[in-house]
Amino acid sequence: MDQMIGKFSVDAKSGQARAGTLTTRRGDIQTPVFMPVGTKATVKSMLPEELKDLGAQIVLGNTYHLHLRPGEKTIKSLGGLHKFMNWDRPILTDSGGFQVFSLSQLSKITEEGVTFQSHLDGAKHFLSPETSMQIQMDLGSDIIMAFDECLKYPATKEENIKSMELTIRWLKRSKEAMTDKGALLFGIVQGGLDLELRKKSLEMTLDVDLPGYALGGFSVGEPIHLMHELVPQVAPLLPENKPRYLMGVGTPLDLILSVDAGIDMFDCVMPTRVARNGTLYTWQGKVSIKRAEYREDPSPLDPECGCYTCTNYSKAYLRHLFLSGEILSSRLNTIHNLYFYLDLMKKARRSLLEGRWEEFRDFCLTRFVKP
Amino acid sequence: MDQMIGKFSVDAKSGQARAGTLTTRRGDIQTPVFMPVGTKATVKSMLPEELKDLGAQIVLGNTYHLHLRPGEKTIKSLGGLHKFMNWDRPILTDSGGFQVFSLSQLSKITEEGVTFQSHLDGAKHFLSPETSMQIQMDLGSDIIMAFDECLKYPATKEENIKSMELTIRWLKRSKEAMTDKGALLFGIVQGGLDLELRKKSLEMTLDVDLPGYALGGFSVGEPIHLMHELVPQVAPLLPENKPRYLMGVGTPLDLILSVDAGIDMFDCVMPTRVARNGTLYTWQGKVSIKRAEYREDPSPLDPECGCYTCTNYSKAYLRHLFLSGEILSSRLNTIHNLYFYLDLMKKARRSLLEGRWEEFRDFCLTRFVKP
Repeated sequence: MDQMIGKFSVDAKSGQARAGTLTTRRGDIQTPVFMPVGTKATVKSMLPEELKDLGAQIVLGNTYHLHLRPGEKTIKSLGGLHKFMNWDRPILTDSGGFQVFSLSQLSKITEEGVTFQSHLDGAKHFLSPETSMQIQMDLGSDIIMAFDECLKYPATKEENIKSMELTIRWLKRSKEAMTDKGALLFGIVQGGLDLELRKKSLEMTLDVDLPGYALGGFSVGEPIHLMHELVPQVAPLLPENKPRYLMGVGTPLDLILSVDAGIDMFDCVMPTRVARNGTLYTWQGKVSIKRAEYREDPSPLDPECGCYTCTNYSKAYLRHLFLSGEILSSRLNTIHNLYFYLDLMKKARRSLLEGRWEEFRDFCLTRFVKP
Repeated sequence: MDQMIGKFSVDAKSGQARAGTLTTRRGDIQTPVFMPVGTKATVKSMLPEELKDLGAQIVLGNTYHLHLRPGEKTIKSLGGLHKFMNWDRPILTDSGGFQVFSLSQLSKITEEGVTFQSHLDGAKHFLSPETSMQIQMDLGSDIIMAFDECLKYPATKEENIKSMELTIRWLKRSKEAMTDKGALLFGIVQGGLDLELRKKSLEMTLDVDLPGYALGGFSVGEPIHLMHELVPQVAPLLPENKPRYLMGVGTPLDLILSVDAGIDMFDCVMPTRVARNGTLYTWQGKVSIKRAEYREDPSPLDPECGCYTCTNYSKAYLRHLFLSGEILSSRLNTIHNLYFYLDLMKKARRSLLEGRWEEFRDFCLTRFVKP
């Protein structure tokens, strides 16, 4: 088993789209896969058992948030993140970089790393490739992300070049510092929205031999069509026999188009976040549950959905809970949206295994693209 | 079955304490029983299936809240409250009176009923014995409470006399208006904290033949020892062969003392409300989960508790969730507190059936009363 850790097998292909299996020390992950985000050691509103019932194979933890509270040393002393949050399947942790640049105050970048102030209490912290690796290892993460710089959109070509070169140097230091042989280190391709820079970053990143590679720097405010132009040109350049992870993406449509481009792994706060704000993804399009037309609507949110929420409750009840600010509103909405995302990836995989990917993809497009 | 509805059998007795069985159209309720409060068609943060797993036999719905939002006609058109909230066991609804007097603005009482302004939007509403019965019947309630006036503490003797006489006239109108033969109408004894007035109210209330009786007007701000002096003198005067319900009470200690006084039924928002504020009832006393001493505490909240929360999580994790404002904090805390209350009543019943009530009661007192 040990020598199998990190193995990625392609189980089926259709064009660039693939169904694969990634072996981790906590079990196999079947791709394409959506990974629910458990920012602060909990996928908001969900129990671990409920995530399993929905078919979640792996969840994310956020290095930045867990470092600030309760602290990785506390979690380590309690037996690691898995035990802390009662989740025994794989966990992927990000490097903390993204949040340092987007959430914290006054972050200052040097060659050594990033000094920043906590968004919680203003305390000064320092993150570097070495500290990020140490935190992720203390958490007991199964898939560890290299520490990178994630530029905001828009950035100039010069900024992008400087940043991606720094990211490569940090990647090498990350690999050096990541000493947990049972965990998998993924490198992150940056380079902004310029195809040539992306290819250059990709080439330099692939020079560092790693069990998986991610595309970073998308979903940072750029027009979404730019991502959809770029990903199909970049994803196929990543190694065929290693998992490809598109970070922080996206809508159901984004997922289907990116699977078609050859992406295997996704994470995004969107399905859980918008659920709490009353927005639901359905096979009939997006639904804003607070709308007055649902006041006395006895029908389920999505008649084509088999989730607990759609099986047991009416749109009228979901609207009532949302307007009343009830916790159960967040719960039922989150269950539905996560089911929708996880089920979408399960169906994508099945269609790949059964040789009907194009048919399934086109069906999804007719449903997800507004006429 | 139909002629059994409303039957209450005493299964065991010890002093005034009793274990009983109340038959409703939606099944039997074994007493003593704690009824979780589902104010707005949801027991806050809980799924119906989870309530069943905890052993909840019956939940409360609030007439005032459901009348204002989404409205009883909406709920009726959707198949009733049970279907609306996906709960097929019995539901008890209050009359709306308590909230009218405590929550709404500018309520004005006449012989006919109460005019008040909604706390949501200031709209004018009117509640009377007739409208309260109609609302509760539209909801499809199994146990319907008579419409009463609930005075705040303190009140003068004159106010109490006037109020309890009005409550009796309203009780007779409630009985007249309650035409759902499958539902049970309970009368409410008022009379404040004066024993003679209580007895007088009780006598007048018992003149109206009903399947159950409640003691109202406690937990309205009075020193708690006054309730514990009065209830043992009043409860035994209620009919032996009918259920006795102490409304809005209380702490675990209150429940044990009141069972000892002959009470069968309880409801209270306390276990669910304080759970969301981080206060947990345990066999070792009340715990405020945010305390710094739990920061790295790997032990369960209550080592003597068998609930899901205590089985799977550490105090350190519960503290982290609470400090992070996570929804899961409300969920895990609510599961524990409800388990504690429901388990307490289950154990009380078992001890009654097995002839060891006094022993169990005294054990509870050593645990719940601070030395």
